[in-house]
Amino acid sequence: MCLDNVWTPQLGRKFTTGICVKLGFSLPCALPSHETTNIVMPKANAFYAQSGGVTPVINASACGVIETASKHKQHIGKVFAGRNGIIGALREDLIDTSKESKKAIQGLLTTPSGAFGSCRYKLRSIEENRAEYERLIDVFKAHNIRYFFYNGGGDSADTCLKVSQLSKTLGYPLQAIHVPKTIDNDLPFTDNCPGFGSVAKYIAVSTKEAALDIKSMCETSTKIFILEVMGRHAGWIAGASGLAAEQAGDAPHVILFPEVAFDRAKFLAKVQQTVTQQGYCVIVASEGAQTADGRFLSDSGILDAFGHAQLGGIAPVLADLIHREFGYKYHWAVADYLQRAARHIASQTDVEQAYAVGKAAVEMAVAGKNAVMPCIIRSKGNPYRWTIGEAPLSKVANREKKMPRSFISRDGFGITAKARRYFEPLIYGEAYPSYKKGMPVYTLLKNHAVPRKLSTRFDV
Amino acid sequence: MCLDNVWTPQLGRKFTTGICVKLGFSLPCALPSHETTNIVMPKANAFYAQSGGVTPVINASACGVIETASKHKQHIGKVFAGRNGIIGALREDLIDTSKESKKAIQGLLTTPSGAFGSCRYKLRSIEENRAEYERLIDVFKAHNIRYFFYNGGGDSADTCLKVSQLSKTLGYPLQAIHVPKTIDNDLPFTDNCPGFGSVAKYIAVSTKEAALDIKSMCETSTKIFILEVMGRHAGWIAGASGLAAEQAGDAPHVILFPEVAFDRAKFLAKVQQTVTQQGYCVIVASEGAQTADGRFLSDSGILDAFGHAQLGGIAPVLADLIHREFGYKYHWAVADYLQRAARHIASQTDVEQAYAVGKAAVEMAVAGKNAVMPCIIRSKGNPYRWTIGEAPLSKVANREKKMPRSFISRDGFGITAKARRYFEPLIYGEAYPSYKKGMPVYTLLKNHAVPRKLSTRFDV
Repeated sequence: MCLDNVWTPQLGRKFTTGICVKLGFSLPCALPSHETTNIVMPKANAFYAQSGGVTPVINASACGVIETASKHKQHIGKVFAGRNGIIGALREDLIDTSKESKKAIQGLLTTPSGAFGSCRYKLRSIEENRAEYERLIDVFKAHNIRYFFYNGGGDSADTCLKVSQLSKTLGYPLQAIHVPKTIDNDLPFTDNCPGFGSVAKYIAVSTKEAALDIKSMCETSTKIFILEVMGRHAGWIAGASGLAAEQAGDAPHVILFPEVAFDRAKFLAKVQQTVTQQGYCVIVASEGAQTADGRFLSDSGILDAFGHAQLGGIAPVLADLIHREFGYKYHWAVADYLQRAARHIASQTDVEQAYAVGKAAVEMAVAGKNAVMPCIIRSKGNPYRWTIGEAPLSKVANREKKMPRSFISRDGFGITAKARRYFEPLIYGEAYPSYKKGMPVYTLLKNHAVPRKLSTRFDV
Repeated sequence: MCLDNVWTPQLGRKFTTGICVKLGFSLPCALPSHETTNIVMPKANAFYAQSGGVTPVINASACGVIETASKHKQHIGKVFAGRNGIIGALREDLIDTSKESKKAIQGLLTTPSGAFGSCRYKLRSIEENRAEYERLIDVFKAHNIRYFFYNGGGDSADTCLKVSQLSKTLGYPLQAIHVPKTIDNDLPFTDNCPGFGSVAKYIAVSTKEAALDIKSMCETSTKIFILEVMGRHAGWIAGASGLAAEQAGDAPHVILFPEVAFDRAKFLAKVQQTVTQQGYCVIVASEGAQTADGRFLSDSGILDAFGHAQLGGIAPVLADLIHREFGYKYHWAVADYLQRAARHIASQTDVEQAYAVGKAAVEMAVAGKNAVMPCIIRSKGNPYRWTIGEAPLSKVANREKKMPRSFISRDGFGITAKARRYFEPLIYGEAYPSYKKGMPVYTLLKNHAVPRKLSTRFDV
């Protein structure tokens, strides 16, 4: 396995590629040919935390971090997880992952949600809230933590970047590696984000299934079905529903992306045309669909008359709009958390990639990296192949990758063949959990607290 | 296999029990000991139609009917399916299932929705609309149809009963067998209804997954999650969500049943208590939850101030109610068609039972039965075992089986151990479809039309 026993203190090097055996993917290896000496890192503990909205596979990344750390005992002592993310560090509320059995840690591979608790908490800058950073250092010092693994999306990358600067700004030696995760698929540099593939699979499968249902009933019953999906700022999830269509005329017939301004007249015309031609119309609407002036559809003036925005949900608003215009019978579904928790239909590719970025993060840390993020690189050509690369956090944080216009069909209501080629491999494979008495067996960790060493408290 | 080559023209006999080999269940056999002569039925064609809301496994019943009919060629010629249910018969729009390959018919076992199209169309009585029945006879005569298999729920049982009386009232020899199907699980006589077990599994799994998600986020984010499920008049589906709870404190914390009058104060107190104790609260609400005076919750005076009833959805209304009272951050999902189309997470038990009732229906017809419905009989004791019995349609039609009060916990917000024992085996086993490129392979039939023989048209 590459990256063992080496420490490359500088960033920005060009890497040769090594092969990581376990999951069969290749990983750019921090072994520039002129630097082959083993520089042994001082042994210290690692901190791992989950951040932001959880996913069906974020625990697979945790599994990758913990299992890989256990293979680098010469560098990494224990892995302490933050209870409820970064606030676990601020509160000195750490979980000792070494108290879990190997089987329990392995069970994380097939368990959705955040096994240690996640949080929505964004650190401000050091200038704005120095006390938070000093507290982190106090806690890290007390527990001899010098590796920081932060498993999150764009906001978390920003937090991780700030923490990575502690070494320079406050003189505490710490390596911070960001482990990418977001169902929104909106992180830059990486070809895709762990978590997204499984949500994409859930949405594509659900769209296909619901479409068959409506198609078989539309002669005398429901003609319109609307599925509302997540994606406040980018239409990746909505776009993935396009995989449900296998031939012309198949659902989804209309996809609403945040990237395309909603045009009421065009939308209604497309719906009517679809019902006329197919007998029914399936619409997948991103919760972030908006009008040309940037207002979310459910808040927009066009629709005020039809819905209470505070009740949320673009699906009922669209259903009502269509019903008032044409009188078609409708049904709507809001997938909400079901989509991002649906480990039962997770993508095998996604699970493998989630594990791989956790594993690579540890290998990068052991190799002396700081302020970087492992990312997924798609190889050119077929069949689908991917490797793990590395991105500097300074260029990842606070940047959002939207669906490219070339992924959206000319009329703005569907995906292109190019988008299909992008999405398709991300949902390959079914990584089923095991079942007992008809229910999936998900792992609940013991989450033993690490005894506190500080006498001070810190309220967040 | 039992029931071959016999015809018992009378109903109400006591039956000995035979064993049907294919699925390993035992079936009451139409062989009263005094009547052992083989009375050969005249060979005729069969009509099969799907009715009402489709399910993840109604096509498995179709598969059972078609495959079993093909084993009784001495009695049954072809199986003609109604395109879009009974209106396919009225319009003389029949599908020749013999044009499909064996593999395609077998594919129905793993394909959700109604492969021949379903409909919401209830025949009125013969007195009210004699023309409809005369049309049915014209079509049946033209195509030599003397077996009528109707695959539906309570309303469809009523239609099937009316058709079964054609022989007596209009002198046309026809045997009508009802094949039970409804996700609502509200048919009498049968222990459970094919279709329900898979929806129950989907809802239980989804509740468990979403609950893990919220639990891991509740410290800093969402504290309330509401999942709206189907069940306009009976709380079976909502009740099945209770399988997600494995130990005290587990979600779902509150289930709202149509059978229990909604009490605003009690509900809010329970939610607050749960958030205080668990940090979060998961609510599963049946769409049919209603107030003491029988008004659906989303239409009720209590909630008028908070939501637009015409937008539908009890989930957003409850979310808003809780938010206004306590300020808790909430999320809600509406499963809608996703739940009844989710073949990807179908219950193996359900698939087997759906097939078995289709198979038994043909065997009952060949045995000369009329106006009956195969039903599922649960054997006493453990492990779970079931057999196929028979119910007279006259006692099935237009009767609704609600959740017994003994299945609902004393406070009205959960299920009892008795209910759990009832629900649990219905979700046993995972009957996965096969996948190609990450998507389930569902069967699309060719649905070749049978050439019309009548010159008359009939508009429905």
